[in-house]
Amino acid sequence: MSAVYVIGAGMTQFKPHPDTEVHELARQAAWDAISSSGVSPDDIELAYAGHAYQGQCFGQKVLLKIGIVGLPVVNCENACASGASAVWGVFNAIKAGQADIGIAIGAEKLASAKGGFTPLVADDLESSLGRVMPAVFGMMARKHMERYGTTLEQLAKIAVKNRRNGVRNPYSPWRDEITLEQVLTSPVIAEPLTRLSCCPVSDGASAVILASEKVVRRYTSKPVEIRSAVLASGIRNGVGMADDHSEMTIRAARRAYEQAGIGPNDVDLCELHDPFTIAELVHCEDLGFCAAGDGGRYVDEGRFDIGGDVAVSPSGGLLARGHPLGATGVAQIAEIFWQLRGEAGERQVPNARVGLAHTVGGGVTQIEAGATSVHILVA
Amino acid sequence: MSAVYVIGAGMTQFKPHPDTEVHELARQAAWDAISSSGVSPDDIELAYAGHAYQGQCFGQKVLLKIGIVGLPVVNCENACASGASAVWGVFNAIKAGQADIGIAIGAEKLASAKGGFTPLVADDLESSLGRVMPAVFGMMARKHMERYGTTLEQLAKIAVKNRRNGVRNPYSPWRDEITLEQVLTSPVIAEPLTRLSCCPVSDGASAVILASEKVVRRYTSKPVEIRSAVLASGIRNGVGMADDHSEMTIRAARRAYEQAGIGPNDVDLCELHDPFTIAELVHCEDLGFCAAGDGGRYVDEGRFDIGGDVAVSPSGGLLARGHPLGATGVAQIAEIFWQLRGEAGERQVPNARVGLAHTVGGGVTQIEAGATSVHILVA
Repeated sequence: MSAVYVIGAGMTQFKPHPDTEVHELARQAAWDAISSSGVSPDDIELAYAGHAYQGQCFGQKVLLKIGIVGLPVVNCENACASGASAVWGVFNAIKAGQADIGIAIGAEKLASAKGGFTPLVADDLESSLGRVMPAVFGMMARKHMERYGTTLEQLAKIAVKNRRNGVRNPYSPWRDEITLEQVLTSPVIAEPLTRLSCCPVSDGASAVILASEKVVRRYTSKPVEIRSAVLASGIRNGVGMADDHSEMTIRAARRAYEQAGIGPNDVDLCELHDPFTIAELVHCEDLGFCAAGDGGRYVDEGRFDIGGDVAVSPSGGLLARGHPLGATGVAQIAEIFWQLRGEAGERQVPNARVGLAHTVGGGVTQIEAGATSVHILVA
Repeated sequence: MSAVYVIGAGMTQFKPHPDTEVHELARQAAWDAISSSGVSPDDIELAYAGHAYQGQCFGQKVLLKIGIVGLPVVNCENACASGASAVWGVFNAIKAGQADIGIAIGAEKLASAKGGFTPLVADDLESSLGRVMPAVFGMMARKHMERYGTTLEQLAKIAVKNRRNGVRNPYSPWRDEITLEQVLTSPVIAEPLTRLSCCPVSDGASAVILASEKVVRRYTSKPVEIRSAVLASGIRNGVGMADDHSEMTIRAARRAYEQAGIGPNDVDLCELHDPFTIAELVHCEDLGFCAAGDGGRYVDEGRFDIGGDVAVSPSGGLLARGHPLGATGVAQIAEIFWQLRGEAGERQVPNARVGLAHTVGGGVTQIEAGATSVHILVA
């Protein structure tokens, strides 16, 4: 069965785009991915488009703007993992022999959500009563602090690190670094998480071109292989559950490491699901970069910095690059692609050879099922 | 690469279900598919869920009701082809080696759409001004009548035939046959299409279990192979286009026949996209069951009846079984599965060995891109 490679990537800046409609944002990202890969639009045989709120037949409409019509297009949703699911879908379709070249597109315009798959808190009593995402993660932070002695300062250092990375990423909207003091004293959103501990609301799009083993060398001498692609589901954990870790993430990561024949110690950089500082900490532990409860200490020691054991969120992550739901999972693959080719400019992780992308999507209540994905890429 | 088989199917009745929420409808269909296939819920390794308007992480929520948690789930949308895209997704994932057993679920509750991917006519000037689906197909009917001499009676006979099939299908809500006179004199919806020339608004769900070559014999001695699975996109045709046929359908069918090594003359039964009588006629021509313009005559001669050259819409089709968007594409595969196993009761197509499923989805305007699918199944 064919190996699958990334050969091109494109992205818009993630920020509010009040004057640009979402199909146009996605077109820009898709076109940049196509151009950078060297494929002709006619060579693309298959597409997945990930989004949560952007209307019917989204991918077809985006591709039509480039003049691409006729190929199989699947529009897919998995909340915050929608874009990652699109990458997974193209990966499988290439392995299944349906195509040699496919495009995965992710996009979202949160400011202009048109109904979408569902209103954010519809039919959900707990959310309606205030148990929205920041509250869930706030409670998770409290639990982690109590259980392991994790401190507010350690959590805040994650926001500082990710912003430091983000200001070096032209796709991030931020140009100024922030201090520990600023994070700790910014307005509280959901105790103990302050505003600078939460990702911003963003609009944006990203796209990647995937190619089969058969054709990859026609387009590049520096392909990046997707060594494993794992999608899983589970029940979102939160306060009141037996554990404050992400069982879905632990399980998906284990499978991805097995498939890739690679362990957590081999990972040079990681783009993970960090909508809140605590999420990065918990996911670092769940992905095996340190033992459960050791995350705070690793942050103190700078081991997740660029230049540390594993560079976590070198793009700035959701916290400091932004989080337009459907775009995020694709953007993570794009970032890792650039990093593994040594094309990440000021935020380049030295000697990057193995990258891991991780997303979590799904509802906010304990009984609600969600999605998680882990992709491992190798230069 | 593994061949892929259908080993079980389930379906709710298609009709308004005012007192049953859509996740429960989908659960019933999924459970029936699982039970009938003989797989244990634990054996299912992967799921796709197709729908257009039913909220975030739909498939995960449905499976959770059965106690299935953990597997990869992708929620997908392609308008009326959403369910077919789900089947296509599972097919590819099994071929890609991601799973040996997968479930495709399709569901929709049109009466209770919660916003969804998009309001039906949002952002669409032509639709807002009245160019909605019945109008598009009404114009297509007029064009076909002018170009080929197709008559109102020929179109009405399709409604009569499909209802005759539908009343023999326990999943259809209809128990009474209709006459040519009733079709011709029922209220006009979009000239020349009368109410009985249009499919009803339905709620419902369907599910099928797919299995790889490696495991299929564990579960059944009568597997039905999905010999080809083709998804394509294109621009929806309509009045004012160069042709009143479906270019997407012609192209997808050609590829599916090639992949399967089977021609239109080999097809014993077909479940196709017949939301309006004219759609069945055009699609019969586009799928190659007769030459362009000959559809009317074939209808007159009963060649699309059960017992004719190819039984078209033996389930009753969208016209007489119903059309809950996301459910339809999966329901077509389920119907063909039952037919090819000789389990279709009073509507059984004699000696059925090859079945073809066809859907078209997408917006109503000429510039809007859509999706089409063709699956060919062999007993």
